[in-house]
Amino acid sequence: MADKKRRAATSGSYSITVRLFTEVDPALVGQIATAIASEGGIVTALDVAESRHDRIVYDVTCSATDSEHATEIVDHLRTLEGITVHKVSDRTFLLHIGGKIEVTSKVPLRTRDDLSMAYTPGVGRVSLALAENPSDVARLTVKGNSVAVVTDGSAVLGLGNIGPGAALPVMEGKAALFKRFANIDAWPICLDTQDTDRIVDVVAAIAPGFGGINLEDIAAPRCFEIERRLRERLDIPVFHDDQHGTAIVVLAALTNALRCVSKELASVRVVVAGAGAAGTAIVTLLLAAGAADVVVCDKDGALAEGDESLSPAMADLAARTNPRRVSGDLHTALTDADVFIGVSAPGVLQAEWIPDMAKDPIVFALANPDPEIDPAEAAPHAAVVASGRSDYPNQINNVLAFPGVFRGLLDARASDVTVEMLLRAADAIAHCVSDEELNASYIIPSVFDSKVPKAVARAIQGI
Amino acid sequence: MADKKRRAATSGSYSITVRLFTEVDPALVGQIATAIASEGGIVTALDVAESRHDRIVYDVTCSATDSEHATEIVDHLRTLEGITVHKVSDRTFLLHIGGKIEVTSKVPLRTRDDLSMAYTPGVGRVSLALAENPSDVARLTVKGNSVAVVTDGSAVLGLGNIGPGAALPVMEGKAALFKRFANIDAWPICLDTQDTDRIVDVVAAIAPGFGGINLEDIAAPRCFEIERRLRERLDIPVFHDDQHGTAIVVLAALTNALRCVSKELASVRVVVAGAGAAGTAIVTLLLAAGAADVVVCDKDGALAEGDESLSPAMADLAARTNPRRVSGDLHTALTDADVFIGVSAPGVLQAEWIPDMAKDPIVFALANPDPEIDPAEAAPHAAVVASGRSDYPNQINNVLAFPGVFRGLLDARASDVTVEMLLRAADAIAHCVSDEELNASYIIPSVFDSKVPKAVARAIQGI
Repeated sequence: MADKKRRAATSGSYSITVRLFTEVDPALVGQIATAIASEGGIVTALDVAESRHDRIVYDVTCSATDSEHATEIVDHLRTLEGITVHKVSDRTFLLHIGGKIEVTSKVPLRTRDDLSMAYTPGVGRVSLALAENPSDVARLTVKGNSVAVVTDGSAVLGLGNIGPGAALPVMEGKAALFKRFANIDAWPICLDTQDTDRIVDVVAAIAPGFGGINLEDIAAPRCFEIERRLRERLDIPVFHDDQHGTAIVVLAALTNALRCVSKELASVRVVVAGAGAAGTAIVTLLLAAGAADVVVCDKDGALAEGDESLSPAMADLAARTNPRRVSGDLHTALTDADVFIGVSAPGVLQAEWIPDMAKDPIVFALANPDPEIDPAEAAPHAAVVASGRSDYPNQINNVLAFPGVFRGLLDARASDVTVEMLLRAADAIAHCVSDEELNASYIIPSVFDSKVPKAVARAIQGI
Repeated sequence: MADKKRRAATSGSYSITVRLFTEVDPALVGQIATAIASEGGIVTALDVAESRHDRIVYDVTCSATDSEHATEIVDHLRTLEGITVHKVSDRTFLLHIGGKIEVTSKVPLRTRDDLSMAYTPGVGRVSLALAENPSDVARLTVKGNSVAVVTDGSAVLGLGNIGPGAALPVMEGKAALFKRFANIDAWPICLDTQDTDRIVDVVAAIAPGFGGINLEDIAAPRCFEIERRLRERLDIPVFHDDQHGTAIVVLAALTNALRCVSKELASVRVVVAGAGAAGTAIVTLLLAAGAADVVVCDKDGALAEGDESLSPAMADLAARTNPRRVSGDLHTALTDADVFIGVSAPGVLQAEWIPDMAKDPIVFALANPDPEIDPAEAAPHAAVVASGRSDYPNQINNVLAFPGVFRGLLDARASDVTVEMLLRAADAIAHCVSDEELNASYIIPSVFDSKVPKAVARAIQGI
């Protein structure tokens, strides 16, 4: 039987459709629904696919937590009298068949005249005009609205180095979100290389057709150098979403969490667990926003300047943080801290440590899909809890940032991304939650709040 | 005043919309239409944009041959009494503003459940499955239906080396045609390099996200080596449309032209003018189809084996052609030839040379936009005339080949393109024209004949 935790985490991301052949007995529908509910599954749809004098065929769709849970639900259905399980389909996989994005024509192509304007010979005049005035390329082509979503497949979600082909569904999903939330035409570029020099060279070579580069799921510390070198080399903006998108949304959420507990960023103690791409970018943006006391912990404890064992990237991070020279493990670092921000690994924060933090502690447990601490376990001890999960309040989701960020960059025909832009974007997201709406369970707007991408785009442009 | 030739060539690719402010006088419409017609323009639309007691505003759209002609038409309109030219818009440029293609989501993204299936966390399961079974990538992502349209901007249409940005409108148009004619998701990749090694390296690096590579408008002889090396290196098909697409359609048209004059490919003498990418591919495919007597002429005359001044690519071409060791200029090579195929430059074929060819000569003048000879001048002397122009019969247009070719390659999950596939594709196009339909003015189907891409796709797959 499903426990309470499992039910709490049930979501549409694991959804199955079960085709059932049943006898003609109206009571069976109730037995089906009851069986699924008793296993902790949630029925989201039930359709009669066929009705004959001797049998009824039902398609029942329900949410489960994972494949084991789905198997339990189906096994329970198999035990019911008068019901045969014909087929089980995984809705997420069905959704991905054939890919999730397509390239469509915005212009009619019905007649010879249509063809001769969109393609040869008419297009020749447009090309010639662009050869003479290269600055018009963004205006007269898709470049002005397009973003390359570039990955080397080395740090995909929480799955690690799964390679470019397996990363493609994620990049496609990102492209779909770009269109959905900011009307941007994004295309996935999955690279068959994890060599820094070659990645930089390849992205630079394909840049003429794009208005921006969104780096995605590239492992640290390689991602830092790739981004830096591409920014130097290209005249279009380069943005590593795992770094800066995350940092923007974290700063927005922290801004509002601090409003809830009446504290100021400049005077709070912040502990960041995780010194990878996200952790580094969060620290950089917090410092730029005025934070003065930030301590970074990796799995070996607090980073401090002068530790010779640190990598260059870590040493740089240490030099910019930990002004009180805190040493020791995460628990030690958390003593009297006001804010915990985890971008590390599942379960690294124990609930009993939270009372050792300062009054009204703020806990952001952002590791995906399994956070540093279950938000339900943290909640009794903390003033504000946020996570990456959609099934708890305060979901920290990059979708709040990247569509509006690129909308603003493209609309401004920007050639660079600046720290000031990121700060303004975070502020814009924070202020999409009004004073009346703000509370400890609502520090960040919904991803479906259409005000957000527009506000971020304006903030990026400084308007 | 416009001459007869200009009127014949008027097409939608040069179309202007003129906004006119006129006095309230119904007779003025007739004067406007007459003025445009007297200049050789063709009125394609006339709309009343505004009607007030003191004036009427008309938007008049008309086709012209070129910008000079459009200026003449507008200048004539300016001379009319009671009419003011307010604004002139170029419809082709208007069509290109903002680009011609977009990336859209095929899946709903309305709810949290939608997001959690299309993106995180649900997409993680799909990525994990692909990491375990890489052969499923084409089935569960856009890779299975996507083609990269790759150019270095070095040989764009007839415009030459205009660079990657100026080439983008052409590549976008190609992508739009891929969708229109074969439901393929194609994305333009415009490269900021014209170095062979780097082009090969970059295309190989981005290949994981695509099901095929369409090389486009890359200059010879570089294009040959790029294609050869990419074919060796990649497990997806690589197809240089300027070569093989052109060769397929030329062979299809020649097959039907020979049916018209009751000659056999194996026994005719063929002269190909132009030894670039298209000429080389045409020769290779004609030889594979059974042609035995092919002579290639470049601007210095017939290519013959043993000429030490030839480049390696030209020497290879010479070694495979010219069995009778013809020497001299194009006119000499054409003596007693059955077929002229021009993929060279405007005006290189003189009408008075055609009578020196064999009985029932076939003339394909394919240089774009201006052919080797005006089809109207060739027609009195030749049994069959074809060109690349849409305003004469027998338009040889790559659109007949490339959509179906890639549809077939993608559907077959092919890893290579073979000569046998190209031969079958040409045969399929030729046989889209039935024996009843076939005549000297109809040797090739319309680009809007929906049978064609389907027949080509089946032929590529050998079904």
